[in-house]
Amino acid sequence: MTVRALILAGGSGTRLWPLSTDDRPKPFLPLAGTKSLLRETSERAARLSGEENVLFSARASHAPHLAREFPGLPAARLVLEPERRNTAPAIALAALAVAGEDPDAVLVVLPSDQAVRDADEFHRALSLAVESARDGKAFLTLGIPPSRPETGFGYLEAGREASPGVREVVRFVEKPPLAEARRYAVSGNHYWNAGIFAFSVRLLFAEVERLCPDVLASMRAADAARRAGDEAGFEAAFRSCRSISIDFAVMEKAVSVRTVPSDCGWSDLGSWEAVFEFRGGVEGRSVLSGPVLEDGGSGNLVLAGDRPVRLLGLSDVVIVDSPDGLLVMKRGSSDLLRTSVERSLSEVRK
Amino acid sequence: MTVRALILAGGSGTRLWPLSTDDRPKPFLPLAGTKSLLRETSERAARLSGEENVLFSARASHAPHLAREFPGLPAARLVLEPERRNTAPAIALAALAVAGEDPDAVLVVLPSDQAVRDADEFHRALSLAVESARDGKAFLTLGIPPSRPETGFGYLEAGREASPGVREVVRFVEKPPLAEARRYAVSGNHYWNAGIFAFSVRLLFAEVERLCPDVLASMRAADAARRAGDEAGFEAAFRSCRSISIDFAVMEKAVSVRTVPSDCGWSDLGSWEAVFEFRGGVEGRSVLSGPVLEDGGSGNLVLAGDRPVRLLGLSDVVIVDSPDGLLVMKRGSSDLLRTSVERSLSEVRK
Repeated sequence: MTVRALILAGGSGTRLWPLSTDDRPKPFLPLAGTKSLLRETSERAARLSGEENVLFSARASHAPHLAREFPGLPAARLVLEPERRNTAPAIALAALAVAGEDPDAVLVVLPSDQAVRDADEFHRALSLAVESARDGKAFLTLGIPPSRPETGFGYLEAGREASPGVREVVRFVEKPPLAEARRYAVSGNHYWNAGIFAFSVRLLFAEVERLCPDVLASMRAADAARRAGDEAGFEAAFRSCRSISIDFAVMEKAVSVRTVPSDCGWSDLGSWEAVFEFRGGVEGRSVLSGPVLEDGGSGNLVLAGDRPVRLLGLSDVVIVDSPDGLLVMKRGSSDLLRTSVERSLSEVRK
Repeated sequence: MTVRALILAGGSGTRLWPLSTDDRPKPFLPLAGTKSLLRETSERAARLSGEENVLFSARASHAPHLAREFPGLPAARLVLEPERRNTAPAIALAALAVAGEDPDAVLVVLPSDQAVRDADEFHRALSLAVESARDGKAFLTLGIPPSRPETGFGYLEAGREASPGVREVVRFVEKPPLAEARRYAVSGNHYWNAGIFAFSVRLLFAEVERLCPDVLASMRAADAARRAGDEAGFEAAFRSCRSISIDFAVMEKAVSVRTVPSDCGWSDLGSWEAVFEFRGGVEGRSVLSGPVLEDGGSGNLVLAGDRPVRLLGLSDVVIVDSPDGLLVMKRGSSDLLRTSVERSLSEVRK
């Protein structure tokens, strides 16, 4: 029984303008340090499965980015989507490719628009999840203990212990209102759903067949066409599939889900505020990257480009300098940024 | 009797980093709007004397900048300095060139690192100064009524009226302490010395001869060498001269100085704060130049480059984007900027 890792190389975000754009999506940016998030994710995956067992799911249009990031990556480790269809079709398609080599394989799914501070703890938790998934009776998820009453994430509600370090998941909770989020933050039974899964491909097929057979049918057709070298048939079959997430299609209704709670310093880096905190920024301490001269202020996040940046007399400010644009923002104004970017995009599209 | 205008094309300033640098000095920047300060100054001068009577004094190393700004400018209208020697030598040298054509000429001296909002009033005042200077008995200066207790400028103290709209200057006052500056701001007898002068070249020579004959001797030698086509002799004579300002060398000790008070909306644009105010910025109203999207803030000065700038949730901030660097500063932090630039320059030179 082999372990394969599937890295989802999608993910974007208007909240990370001007660095993250359609052409240069978030996983390809070195947001957590000096390596791209994708590279860091692949290193975590390789530690678990060996590098040769790490697959990438990506939009076909991002294949050149992947080739630059991973020179010499064999085509067999690439699962390209002709169009976005969310995570369920992409995972089903990759699982079919994996099952073709080992029908008993355990597949680990890792989004790549995230970061982890404690790689050892992450490895421990994910290894335990893989171990628990081997019986083929449940989907395993990583559960991140909430550090704040976050209303932007989905939660897992955990019940009794299934085995040491592993708990049954009672239910999935969609993004909660603030009062609920406050309760979850201290309940001891609620975890952030980071979208990190481990499961046997046999179980996946059984549950996809039961819960959304049309998705499995489309992906079986796509997989067969690809094996036959029929690119047009592959694309047509893929495009015919509806867009649906693995959480909504399978996990929330699955026969059994377990979670491995792990305080691994996970972050979705979903906003500049999250990037600031992940990189050690706190009240009174700045995060400065590149040629930055700061004087008379603190608590700033500055990601400089090639040019020197002087930041004078200001605190709690975000500055991101990129060839595509310059952001200067009060920290914590992510909502203003999202609104501003969406408005200008809609004006451009008019 | 002709009127000639001499534009001093020097001037720099660490307070205007990152736009103003040694290679691209302040007069060549469009700080007051869309034209360079030098171009705006030359247009004000040409209105008074005719374009053909406008001369430029500049460092030789800035000759290429001048040629770009004024294509086809005849060499006869250029007075190039091999090295900086402050204003007295430059003005004496230009006056010698002017006197060679008309020994009775009136010369108007205009710094070009300044801006004027009310061009008509400026023209009225300067015309009156030229008129008053024709008798050859006094140096004329423009006197700017103080709008605030500024400690960074020199002042003129005015006495009785010499003729309608013209007052005698009792004395020059160097940069005063704050208490003095507060008194000057409301006295009705004190004006900012903008360094804008009009005088007959005959009077200039007489007073330079009396007050600093060594400067005149050096410049006579330089002028003679230049007329003889002896470039090396010109440079040697110029370099032999000491560095001294026209204010210190002549005006403060001159036999007679008069001033024409003029509330012409003059600014030295000596800091980003001054640029903000000159361009109409006030509490609650921003000055935005270039592709700028501002949301959730006001009272900002943003000079964008080619790239879009988003400024979100911040007020009273200065942002200046240039190929040489990026400045993000709390408004009113000019002292921090000067210190920061001087410190890094001294580090570079170590």
